[in-house]
Amino acid sequence: MSIVLGPYQYGKAEIRLVRIVRDTPRHEITDLNVSTALRGDFSGAYLDGDQRTSLPTDSQKNTAYVWAKKLNPDPIEAYGLSLAHHFVDDVGPVEGARIEIERFDWTRVTIDGRPHDHTFVRTGQEVRTAAITLEPGATHVVQGFKDLIVLKSTGSHYRDFLVEEYTTLRPTDDRILATSLTAKWRVTEPSADLDWNAMYAGVMAVMLEQFATLDSSALQETLWHMGRAALEAYPEIAEIRLVAPNKHHFEVDFSRFDEDNHNEVFHADDRPYGLIQASALREGAAPAGDAWLDYTGSV
Amino acid sequence: MSIVLGPYQYGKAEIRLVRIVRDTPRHEITDLNVSTALRGDFSGAYLDGDQRTSLPTDSQKNTAYVWAKKLNPDPIEAYGLSLAHHFVDDVGPVEGARIEIERFDWTRVTIDGRPHDHTFVRTGQEVRTAAITLEPGATHVVQGFKDLIVLKSTGSHYRDFLVEEYTTLRPTDDRILATSLTAKWRVTEPSADLDWNAMYAGVMAVMLEQFATLDSSALQETLWHMGRAALEAYPEIAEIRLVAPNKHHFEVDFSRFDEDNHNEVFHADDRPYGLIQASALREGAAPAGDAWLDYTGSV
Amino acid sequence: MSIVLGPYQYGKAEIRLVRIVRDTPRHEITDLNVSTALRGDFSGAYLDGDQRTSLPTDSQKNTAYVWAKKLNPDPIEAYGLSLAHHFVDDVGPVEGARIEIERFDWTRVTIDGRPHDHTFVRTGQEVRTAAITLEPGATHVVQGFKDLIVLKSTGSHYRDFLVEEYTTLRPTDDRILATSLTAKWRVTEPSADLDWNAMYAGVMAVMLEQFATLDSSALQETLWHMGRAALEAYPEIAEIRLVAPNKHHFEVDFSRFDEDNHNEVFHADDRPYGLIQASALREGAAPAGDAWLDYTGSV
Amino acid sequence: MSIVLGPYQYGKAEIRLVRIVRDTPRHEITDLNVSTALRGDFSGAYLDGDQRTSLPTDSQKNTAYVWAKKLNPDPIEAYGLSLAHHFVDDVGPVEGARIEIERFDWTRVTIDGRPHDHTFVRTGQEVRTAAITLEPGATHVVQGFKDLIVLKSTGSHYRDFLVEEYTTLRPTDDRILATSLTAKWRVTEPSADLDWNAMYAGVMAVMLEQFATLDSSALQETLWHMGRAALEAYPEIAEIRLVAPNKHHFEVDFSRFDEDNHNEVFHADDRPYGLIQASALREGAAPAGDAWLDYTGSV
Repeated sequence: MSIVLGPYQYGKAEIRLVRIVRDTPRHEITDLNVSTALRGDFSGAYLDGDQRTSLPTDSQKNTAYVWAKKLNPDPIEAYGLSLAHHFVDDVGPVEGARIEIERFDWTRVTIDGRPHDHTFVRTGQEVRTAAITLEPGATHVVQGFKDLIVLKSTGSHYRDFLVEEYTTLRPTDDRILATSLTAKWRVTEPSADLDWNAMYAGVMAVMLEQFATLDSSALQETLWHMGRAALEAYPEIAEIRLVAPNKHHFEVDFSRFDEDNHNEVFHADDRPYGLIQASALREGAAPAGDAWLDYTGSV
Repeated sequence: MSIVLGPYQYGKAEIRLVRIVRDTPRHEITDLNVSTALRGDFSGAYLDGDQRTSLPTDSQKNTAYVWAKKLNPDPIEAYGLSLAHHFVDDVGPVEGARIEIERFDWTRVTIDGRPHDHTFVRTGQEVRTAAITLEPGATHVVQGFKDLIVLKSTGSHYRDFLVEEYTTLRPTDDRILATSLTAKWRVTEPSADLDWNAMYAGVMAVMLEQFATLDSSALQETLWHMGRAALEAYPEIAEIRLVAPNKHHFEVDFSRFDEDNHNEVFHADDRPYGLIQASALREGAAPAGDAWLDYTGSV
Repeated sequence: MSIVLGPYQYGKAEIRLVRIVRDTPRHEITDLNVSTALRGDFSGAYLDGDQRTSLPTDSQKNTAYVWAKKLNPDPIEAYGLSLAHHFVDDVGPVEGARIEIERFDWTRVTIDGRPHDHTFVRTGQEVRTAAITLEPGATHVVQGFKDLIVLKSTGSHYRDFLVEEYTTLRPTDDRILATSLTAKWRVTEPSADLDWNAMYAGVMAVMLEQFATLDSSALQETLWHMGRAALEAYPEIAEIRLVAPNKHHFEVDFSRFDEDNHNEVFHADDRPYGLIQASALREGAAPAGDAWLDYTGSV
Repeated sequence: MSIVLGPYQYGKAEIRLVRIVRDTPRHEITDLNVSTALRGDFSGAYLDGDQRTSLPTDSQKNTAYVWAKKLNPDPIEAYGLSLAHHFVDDVGPVEGARIEIERFDWTRVTIDGRPHDHTFVRTGQEVRTAAITLEPGATHVVQGFKDLIVLKSTGSHYRDFLVEEYTTLRPTDDRILATSLTAKWRVTEPSADLDWNAMYAGVMAVMLEQFATLDSSALQETLWHMGRAALEAYPEIAEIRLVAPNKHHFEVDFSRFDEDNHNEVFHADDRPYGLIQASALREGAAPAGDAWLDYTGSV
């Protein structure tokens, strides 16, 4: 049995790019972490060290910067689509491109009751994400966020679970439910003209409403309803994937002290943590193709 | 020359403690990282392994939890003062105590236009800090924050600096000024009754105003004016210390491309970074004693 | 179009488990980070909050600890296989299991020229990894490591690459080549009896030899030859996947100083970095099935 | 009461510098993280934005690179002394300098049984550190390390401690003792000619011997004996400071399972952790002056 070259891709990861729009005294800021990956026949570089068809990752970096000037990278999805098309359309050997973007949020500082023209403070816990994929015959955008830390201090129980030899957990009718949520949703027929910022805010709002108002029997159930609600609200969304660590808050045992503790004082534990993954799909939606083929994540 | 035991202290670090006030349907949350250190004659533990006068760090942890029930730990400074007094007053061999607290900020989620009763999202970039120190004859509180990332996209220059053999930097009349600020201020005559939350918000506002409005010749100058303004606004503050990495944003060189870049596209660099330290003092203020003697920091 | 539940899984992540074998005065230590995920029909938990078929993640944690007693978890692959079989064979609703393990390396401290019986220091840069997957009809083991930082100070060039409008990089005939390597290889017909520790050491040695001795035209070429050589040395390996950030070391420009720099003084940059992914396959090997379906990684 | 400028300093932090000695085919590598701070009268920069006496941090960075060419930065202490003297002696307004260095360890890869000439793998858990301080009339060097993770699986107990109202811990006659040690020792009459590498290895060996062989009643006792032994072995050392988190390993409770656990299976907990600080002093040693005045640490 012979040994052959398998799948590959390459690019520049974590280009930390800040774009200031300063056409008026009221500046705008967009703060990004951009990663680019190219796909195509670069087998010569791997098998023989032949770089003649390989665009250096340094050039990819330069291009990401120039593109942030050509068009203000807000929304990030439109920027990513344009950058991906450039690589595929303008650079000969490139057949596919993947652009992954993280966006960090800034808010204007308030001075004398008014938002300041050019001073900003970094805000927000979550990081907005986008993954743009061009493959022959298809274009994909996955919008999302990571690290949204959300907690409800009641309205969550956990009981009537499977019990076997190694089960020592006791059921609870009232507990803290907390997670650091990652959510990513794939948009059908993505175009630069879509109102991506409105969709982002809308999906966030719909999911937070489910988290807050659902009387939760488990993080699994909460995740499903968050995903389902997002798809119901936005017909453009083909599917959504959620990853949620169960950030355990353990009620501290006061039984040996002269105090009681009725779900008032908790130890926020680090590790281990439950890790729940869920997804919701729209039946009949366009196929995902390479939309979920990560670049900066795992192989 | 003989070898002797030098300074020492010990305690429990990073007690991750969440307190929910749930007396009404509208819950309140306080999310803390508490560290305790005891000072006194524990030389037996070091020299001979004699633990008879040493309170286990596990007991210190328990106490931090119980104290979060006895009094709602908001403001954190009042909680820290009470906890420190307990160790010094109620535990025989303890002569001094140091309580260091980090507070993580949460905001209510808005559902149907109204803040939700028991669902919160973690917000804010900066972490509020407090360091409470009891030593024989003195009580100190240092209030502060860390990791406040703030940026101005104009109103900063850097020129007319010392030039010698190894200087290659060129002066600039307009640059991004950005930092991740740590600030700590020592309060004279600290008491549990002080309106600590108002002081925190007030100092933050005063410092941000200076950052935004001062036409900056250097981060050094900006820091001095931030500290000075805080002391002018709050006579209770004896001194303030500021640590500020200069988060360099380098204008990307477009000279070889068919684009120009007039302070519009920047590379946000990681390392190295300038690191500027400054302090402002009120002449004649009460001495600092052990107020700045860290526990969880360096030796 | 209706909305349906898509793929899901759940389990306990990052169980930090230390196993001491102390049957003789010469102790052995195994230090692990274990994550478990269960697969099967748990749709009730997601759709209706019905936990009756769901084994709590807390019970999974307990089981991982007990299994570390039942059999010493060295090699980690045999431990993971046994634990996965327990979940699938002994817990009714479970149809598949994924066990991901990180192993941290410890070395005996040398005292008076001899390895000490029960004192160890944590060593090694890289973390050994294993991923065990049971699905109906198939068993998979992926052995590997991450964070192996390796550098060669010569024997690497980069030239004759594609040049276009945004290319400013200059070719080099001699550069530092450095990476923080992640490698994972899938083993056909995995069994608990295989000499996993020998295979791990062997693959590591083969890959390091390629890294050191190949005159490298690009990181792509180096990765391919590392993977190819591993498959040639071990017929049991069906495929190998490599992820390698190009840790750029930039020669510092001394042209304005009274010193020269011939590849002697470098700035080790953080971000951005080239990111190269490669794989080598054995033609005709058994199919991968769910072997690469991560748990603690991305969705 | 008037408000005045207090203590200040400024410099460049975290210059990631790699030096290759390539005079022969057998290369040498030194991998450093260098931080520089200047002290003197720079009040103009703070009070008035007057930079005329301030050497830019960018120039300090350039100088650190050039100095790594002028002399191979091994040992790091000699490099730091030379660099500090340059700033104080050659740059007019500078009156004092602080150089902090981290050194990352690399080992030659073994190929065909022989150490390779130019291929290295990053090794070692701990990071070697040095802090060089020049102040008017005094020169200080503090040698040390951080992040040395060391564990003994027996030979440690904890009992007969102070018990009060909030004590629930039970005494133990046999436990795991583990820490991630930071140690820093001040050397009297430091000179570039001292055999710094031998001292580093020697202090490490002496301390590890104490850790391994002392039957420990508490981490406090272990730390004292480690420090004391270092001072006994090296008369050049004036004092040593140790910071040691007690990395708790909790025996997992198997009482409800059909297994026993006699100090065999542990949960390695993250937070909270005991934090123990100790120091040993040589009576009559030269005073410390600014030797312990951190730059990259706290204010």
